[in-house]
Parts: sequence; C-alpha cells; structure tokens
Amino acid sequence: MAMAGYKGFLGLLVSALLVGFLSVIFTLIWVLHYREGLGWDGTELEFNWHPVLLITGFVFIQGIAIIVYRLPWTWKCSKLLMKSIHAGLNTVAAILVIISLVAVFDFHNAKNIANMYSLHSWVGLTVVILYILQLFLGFFIFLLPWAPLSLRALLMPIHVYSGLLIFGTVIATVLMGVTEKLLFMKNSSYSSFPPEGVFVNTLGLLVLVFGALIFWIVTRPQWKRPKEPNCALLQPNRGTSEGVEGSMAMNSGNVDKSDSELNSEATARKRNFMLDDAGQRSTM
Amino acid sequence: MAMAGYKGFLGLLVSALLVGFLSVIFTLIWVLHYREGLGWDGTELEFNWHPVLLITGFVFIQGIAIIVYRLPWTWKCSKLLMKSIHAGLNTVAAILVIISLVAVFDFHNAKNIANMYSLHSWVGLTVVILYILQLFLGFFIFLLPWAPLSLRALLMPIHVYSGLLIFGTVIATVLMGVTEKLLFMKNSSYSSFPPEGVFVNTLGLLVLVFGALIFWIVTRPQWKRPKEPNCALLQPNRGTSEGVEGSMAMNSGNVDKSDSELNSEATARKRNFMLDDAGQRSTM
Repeated sequence: MAMAGYKGFLGLLVSALLVGFLSVIFTLIWVLHYREGLGWDGTELEFNWHPVLLITGFVFIQGIAIIVYRLPWTWKCSKLLMKSIHAGLNTVAAILVIISLVAVFDFHNAKNIANMYSLHSWVGLTVVILYILQLFLGFFIFLLPWAPLSLRALLMPIHVYSGLLIFGTVIATVLMGVTEKLLFMKNSSYSSFPPEGVFVNTLGLLVLVFGALIFWIVTRPQWKRPKEPNCALLQPNRGTSEGVEGSMAMNSGNVDKSDSELNSEATARKRNFMLDDAGQRSTM
Repeated sequence: MAMAGYKGFLGLLVSALLVGFLSVIFTLIWVLHYREGLGWDGTELEFNWHPVLLITGFVFIQGIAIIVYRLPWTWKCSKLLMKSIHAGLNTVAAILVIISLVAVFDFHNAKNIANMYSLHSWVGLTVVILYILQLFLGFFIFLLPWAPLSLRALLMPIHVYSGLLIFGTVIATVLMGVTEKLLFMKNSSYSSFPPEGVFVNTLGLLVLVFGALIFWIVTRPQWKRPKEPNCALLQPNRGTSEGVEGSMAMNSGNVDKSDSELNSEATARKRNFMLDDAGQRSTM
C-alpha cells in the first residue's frame, strides 16, 4: 500500500532500529567489559541484568511495539493480527522488566542496600505498575472483542497518551539510573572523565535519540495506518469507504452480545473498524 | 469562543498551574531550608540559583509558553499577539536558563570541580543550545513576516515536534540533576531516607506530573486554537471559511516581496492563516 514520504519513513525506521540495537549492544559492552559481567548470585553480576533487560525490553522492544502499526507492509494484515503483535511485544517487554526488577531487589537485599529511596526507584516502580495496568487494560478493552465501542472510543486517546507518556518516562528513568550507577563508581571517579563514564554517557545519548526517533515516527499523521478496511477483515462484503461508514453508522449503536457467532464476527469487524477510526483520530 | 470540554480544560489548566507553581515553591524550600540559601559568591549559594532558575524558567515558564495558544479566552486575540507572547515567554525562560548555567560554571570553577563530565551536563547543554536555536528559528521564520509560506508550512511540524522534544528532555535532565545533587549529599546519606531526600524526590514527581499535564493539554485536538480567522486579522474582508480558503488557494503561490505596505499586510494575513492551518494539522 502506498505511503506518503515512504523513503523518509524507511530512513527513520532503519535509524531507529540501528540506534536501538546499538543501545542494547552498548549496555552489554558496559556490563561485560567495564563491569563484572552477568550472573544470578546476589552480587553485582545479578544487578547487571537490570540495565541489560531494561534497555532491551522497556526501551527497545517497547519502542518497536509503539510504531508497529506504522509499518506500511503490515497494512494489508488484519488489525487483530497487528494488535496481537503490539500486545505480544509489550508482554515480552513487561516480562523482561519484571525480571530486571527481581534482579535489582535481590542484589540490594543480598548486599543490605536500602530499596526504594531514590527518585529513580520511585519513578521507575510507578512506571512499571502503570505499564502493566496499561497492558491489562489494553488486552481486555482493545484486544478482546467484548468492550463496547463507546468505551473503546473513550479510552483510545488515553491509551495512546499513556503509552507515549510511559515510554518517555522510561527513558527519563533510564537516564537517572545511568547517572546513579556512574556516581556509585568506586575505582575511578566519574568527574575525571574515565572511559566508562564517557562510554555510558554515550549510551544515555543513544537511548535519548532512540526515543526521539520513535516519537517522530509515531506522531507523523501521514504515516498512520489507513482508515480503509483491510482485505482480510472485509473480504465478504467489501465496499467503498463511504458505504462501510454508512452501514457502520446505521449499526454501531446496535451492538448486541446475543448475536450468533457469525454476527459477532461481523460486529467485531465493525468494532475494529470504528476503533481504527477512533485510534486514528486520537493518535497524537 | 466555545471550546469542547471547556470544564475539563479548565480543571487541567488549574492543575498544571498549581503543580508548576508548587514545583517552584518546592525548589525554593529546598535551597533555602535544606541547603545554604541563595547568593552570588562562587559558593553553594551561587550554585543554588541553578535549580531555582531552571525549574522556574525551563520547566514552568516553558510549559506555559507551550500551551498559551490553547487558552480559549485568547482566541479572539490576533495570532501575532499570541505568537509574541509565546516568543516572549520562551525568551524570558532562555535568559533564566543562561543565568542558571553561568551560576553552575562559576561555582565549579571557583571550587575546582570539573565541568561537563556527567550525562546531566551533556544532555542539559545540548538541550539549551537546541532551545536557543529553536527560539531564533521561531523568531525569524514564524514571528517576522518575511519567511515564505512554503518554508513555514515545511518547518511548522518540526517546530512543534522539537519544542515538545526539548520540553520532555528538559524534564528528564531535571530528574538527572536532582539525582546527582541528592547523591552528592554529605551530611546525610540519600539511602537512609533523610527528609531532604524524600522532599526532593517529591519535587521530582511534581515536575514529572507538570510535564504530563502540559503534554495532555497540548495534544488534545479539540483544544487547539480554531482555524477560523480571528476578528482582529480579518475585519476588512471578513468572509466564510470557504471563501477565505478559496482566495488563499488562488493567491498563496504568488507571494511577492515587492508588494506595497498594504498588500504586504494582506499577504501577512494570508500567511498567518495558512500557518494557522499548517500548525493545526501538524500539532501533535
């Protein structure tokens, strides 16, 4: 399907993937080369899973999950498939994030370091809770077919806003975490420009640039998934956009849970379509 | 002029003003009660201007400057007046930011502390440079009447995106700065939950909530300044929206700098109108 400014999109997508991938590589080099490596034994080796899993899951995978509807070669796929991929990527990210939290609490408890005293931990835990809440709400309201259209239309702008706010706050929290860890350095002082300090500052910049690229891609109106019904969903009664919107306008107030299975499918199609529309009007 | 969801807007605006004001008050209490106070003598008293001026200028005033077009009681004012207020608030913020940087460099140099080693300083200085660049570009391209329409239309989405990216990055930088300062505490350790730590963590949360409120307000499409020409600008040849757009379509490719003063004014009107339109389509 045609996309306005396709070359620009492709350039930014490749840049985002490259910068995101580099962020993960930089984090691995940080913990494997400059730090003690990885392990699960209550020592620094266990702590080191914290940045690795967070940059991989909460930054890179969440970033990709945010722009997955923008990939033009998925526009011929059903909206349900794309929603499942969006939810799936966010679920993988959530699992990595939870493991990364276990790693840091384990490490703190083994070393008798206080938990939850820093601004990094306050903002970080809040954003993890909001992320999991967002994941559950998204699953029950937008992926499962049961929520009424009116509720979906009401919540879609909030879902989009919350998603981007969470993503931005995650990046801010990563920058705080990096700052903390570099100030905890024992062997060499951060203020004497040690190679680790310069390297990890660069990692921080990479994470920030990745976030900036994802925000640009997701907020371009011309790169949104088109409103038109896709082939997979509307093969049986394919029509012009006007025709579908017209039939939708007639039926949308009439969603009935006692429909037969076939009718439910049709209803789900209409729901998906309305939602597409709501999503597209609300996506910032 | 009527605004959809006016009560919701008012509630969020009052919340944003309150949280922004509280952030400034918390910063003052931090430096006056928990720290050494304010002064300009190369000691900590001079450093303390850094958080005070940054939270006041770069967070609070910049945040208000971002949403100034959204205030419905300004929709009857000319766009030029609103642009001047937007530019004026950002200029005041830029001046406070520059003084706050002088304060921290002065303090570092007087105390022989290294400059520019931390991620906070790297991101912070970058964002100040981008902010001043954005201010100059905005002044010459959008406020002065000389830039061609095509250039304005091309740059408006970038102006809006850059503005919000800068604002978000400023908040992330503030959170890093707060983290740094709390980890530098000598008398009491951050990890033992001292009152200062809890208080300044709360300040960090306030700044984050202020940013979240500004982002919500500025990204609601229903709260944008309407496209319709305002009374001040279009009194001479007021017409229906269609009529104005029609005449614009005919003339917009024909902007000539050798126009007489009156014609220039008419051209500027059209420019403003086009820009309104471009801005409204592009504002996220």
